[in-house]
Amino acid sequence: MFFVEVIPHWLEKRAYISPNQTAIQLKDKTQISFRQLRQDVKQLAEKLNTLGIQPGVHVSLLANNSYDMVKMIHALTYLQATIVLLNARLTPDELHFQYEDSKSQFLLFQEGLEEKVQTIQARYHNQVVSFQEAFQSEGSSFDVPEEMNLNDIFTIIYTSGTTGFPKGVQLTYGNHFWSATSSALNLGIREEDRWLAMLPLFHVSGLSILVKSLVYGMPVHLHEKFSVNDVHREIMEEGVTIVSVVTVMVEQLLERLQNESYPDSLRCLLLGGGPAPKPLLEKCKDEGIPIFQSYGMTETSSQIVTLSAQDALTKIGSAGKPLFPAQLKIQQESGYDVPNVVGEIVVKGPMVTQGYFEREEANQDTFHDDGWLKTGDLGYIDEQGYLYVVDRRKDLIISGGENVYPAEVESALKGIQGVKDAGVTGIEDHKWGQVPVGFIVRQLDSKLDEAEIMEELQNKLAKYKIPKAIYFVDDLPRNASKKLLRRTLAEWAEERRG
Amino acid sequence: MFFVEVIPHWLEKRAYISPNQTAIQLKDKTQISFRQLRQDVKQLAEKLNTLGIQPGVHVSLLANNSYDMVKMIHALTYLQATIVLLNARLTPDELHFQYEDSKSQFLLFQEGLEEKVQTIQARYHNQVVSFQEAFQSEGSSFDVPEEMNLNDIFTIIYTSGTTGFPKGVQLTYGNHFWSATSSALNLGIREEDRWLAMLPLFHVSGLSILVKSLVYGMPVHLHEKFSVNDVHREIMEEGVTIVSVVTVMVEQLLERLQNESYPDSLRCLLLGGGPAPKPLLEKCKDEGIPIFQSYGMTETSSQIVTLSAQDALTKIGSAGKPLFPAQLKIQQESGYDVPNVVGEIVVKGPMVTQGYFEREEANQDTFHDDGWLKTGDLGYIDEQGYLYVVDRRKDLIISGGENVYPAEVESALKGIQGVKDAGVTGIEDHKWGQVPVGFIVRQLDSKLDEAEIMEELQNKLAKYKIPKAIYFVDDLPRNASKKLLRRTLAEWAEERRG
Repeated sequence: MFFVEVIPHWLEKRAYISPNQTAIQLKDKTQISFRQLRQDVKQLAEKLNTLGIQPGVHVSLLANNSYDMVKMIHALTYLQATIVLLNARLTPDELHFQYEDSKSQFLLFQEGLEEKVQTIQARYHNQVVSFQEAFQSEGSSFDVPEEMNLNDIFTIIYTSGTTGFPKGVQLTYGNHFWSATSSALNLGIREEDRWLAMLPLFHVSGLSILVKSLVYGMPVHLHEKFSVNDVHREIMEEGVTIVSVVTVMVEQLLERLQNESYPDSLRCLLLGGGPAPKPLLEKCKDEGIPIFQSYGMTETSSQIVTLSAQDALTKIGSAGKPLFPAQLKIQQESGYDVPNVVGEIVVKGPMVTQGYFEREEANQDTFHDDGWLKTGDLGYIDEQGYLYVVDRRKDLIISGGENVYPAEVESALKGIQGVKDAGVTGIEDHKWGQVPVGFIVRQLDSKLDEAEIMEELQNKLAKYKIPKAIYFVDDLPRNASKKLLRRTLAEWAEERRG
Repeated sequence: MFFVEVIPHWLEKRAYISPNQTAIQLKDKTQISFRQLRQDVKQLAEKLNTLGIQPGVHVSLLANNSYDMVKMIHALTYLQATIVLLNARLTPDELHFQYEDSKSQFLLFQEGLEEKVQTIQARYHNQVVSFQEAFQSEGSSFDVPEEMNLNDIFTIIYTSGTTGFPKGVQLTYGNHFWSATSSALNLGIREEDRWLAMLPLFHVSGLSILVKSLVYGMPVHLHEKFSVNDVHREIMEEGVTIVSVVTVMVEQLLERLQNESYPDSLRCLLLGGGPAPKPLLEKCKDEGIPIFQSYGMTETSSQIVTLSAQDALTKIGSAGKPLFPAQLKIQQESGYDVPNVVGEIVVKGPMVTQGYFEREEANQDTFHDDGWLKTGDLGYIDEQGYLYVVDRRKDLIISGGENVYPAEVESALKGIQGVKDAGVTGIEDHKWGQVPVGFIVRQLDSKLDEAEIMEELQNKLAKYKIPKAIYFVDDLPRNASKKLLRRTLAEWAEERRG
């Protein structure tokens, strides 16, 4: 008696099942079939093999979305290496930290990112290889694995750094596979599906699309980065059915849409990256845009809670219910799951990480023995069990004993005419402990001032939630996934208070 | 570090995610929602709890397709019992054997099947409970499990007995869950899906539809048994999108269809239960009927190889490629997988049984250490890796050193005008070792005789494949899944030869 913990190697299997199906469509409409993808990847794997990449070795990868990056990711699975996906927006020192912390033995980097790898190169010269060098190596054949073990580590991705010190999240092939099938059980799988990926592949939000492509046999439309016109065109003209987005992208898409409407082929804008302002969701509803709020993080291989199609219109503001194989609890001061009471979101499921790489203490703090992960996020469930995420626990502002959720205040600010974007953080206050302050990006033509904003907020928010200061800025600090960096906001606030 | 081997209890989870969705639609159009189903099932589980059914206990279930049977199956999962699904067409002695062999401690039987349980009742009086008795018990509450362990045994189903002595196939929750998701990766999942189940729930072919209903959140249209008019009506009027069928049902449906055509809502006739005659598949193609041949058995939790939508028209006669998480090999005399060479079909995957219940020898014969299952079926793959099933190895007729595949001869016989159904088996022959003989069911108005049949076959089949005798009969022996019982045919042939 045994339990099978292996599946066929997912690219080998997909190329065997659907050789002629499009795997990747690039912005210039170049299409790469699964047969072609497999062939290109195997050839590359033989070259990487010559470099001496052995099974189990940690290999850092530094690149922006591109077909070359896709090939590298898949080629490293043939070599059974663990891929450390480095964020191309980090500084050389930050990258150096992750390279060492992950115990990487190789760094593969894309042309154009030479400056980023200088610090690592200075110390580990022999281990640093450019894509071009890799592609120009002689190949040497090796035994292509027919299977992958679901318990093997596929990727290490450092948490995006919006809070705390970066930790390497280990995700197995099993985590990624279950994530893909779990999403399918919620969103369905249709033959005509085409998923647009312009979120970075070095984040789990982008990477998970690549895995779904293999598991579903579905074309991915791959873009280097977000551009509102390109996404608009893909939806209008290229039959894209699903797009993974964050709030700020939806805002720009809506602006671009103007009086047009999307074709029926678009069936899902899958919204992640934090709670979305309700006015935005309502605007989408009014315009018939199929937006599905979701909740997830690197530790859960992307979404773990998603609002289903049938609930999208009636439960605006909710992130939905946990995907079929996943579970959710709200840990409150005394007990669990009292409806409408805010507590810490705790999740479990086969898509949840087995732990951070070599972080015993963090693992003990984060995981219960029986597989539950404490997310550090705050939320509540309503009577029907729908999750509402209120904020990161670490972003919570406690003012005079009252909880102030930055996302709630931001949502109110964004509802004011003339406000294009808003971010809220807490600063220390000798009287209240902490108080909220707001950063505002005005719309181009707007002359909105602080007094007008304060007046607008009087009726919308309790007094303790109203920012004690408003700062006008040109842009808000966001990471590569366009997630608001509240830690940076807090630094700005301290500077301004000087 | 750990690997999560649990998922939420599937009915609990489905009722939480999709309470208002239809779970079951009966022939009279009664609809039962997942909320209602859960409520009914929990109530029943409390009654069964009173009877003393404990976790891990084996409980035999004898019933025909009905809402009561559905409730019983799910209620036993709440009690964490293992369900032994008895075939309601067996004799009292056969049932007695399975009851004892499976070490059952309870027998739950449906009204109308009293005669079938007499033999068991005589010996185990206290353990035999009718559905009515169960439903009339007092309930007693117990801790409903929130989770199910993927390694726990959900069902034991005895192999249909078309060959050899019955063995109890153990299938875990994990086997069934993976089977459902694997099928989804091939067929897709659409919101409008409705799957018609008239194959018996006591066979894996029917039961697997019930599991898919929970995992996908999809309505099942449940019928007690196959009736050509009912199935026709469900497709034409009730929006059924998928129907699991065996060959003989397709033949009747085609006859019933006459000059009508099916609506676009029908997207798949999933054909199992053995190789289908090519003329039938071609007729379906001509009439635009979306038929998907598949290959599977109880040991693989239903289909493990299925022809995909895009290949259905170009690869007629093939059972397709193994589902995404599954693997397939053709074991030949020397080696594996030479194209177009017949060998034993060997399969592997997370939907494959962990073994027969208490059959050490059979398990050693059937399973390789690394999870491969020897199916005992014969087939080959073509150059593109598509599987063609030629026959059960045990049905193979070896005549003068040549292999004769009964299914191939049957296919030729069915291509003759006037033949409604045909079955072929081998009998001993002093000269050739074995020779094939054929049993023919003629169409109502046909006067076809043996000489005409022999003449028709001259050009179609090599001489050694042509039956040495033709017997005309009113019906062929088939089991509850309408699978041809070649063992019975062999007995008939011996009798007729006298």
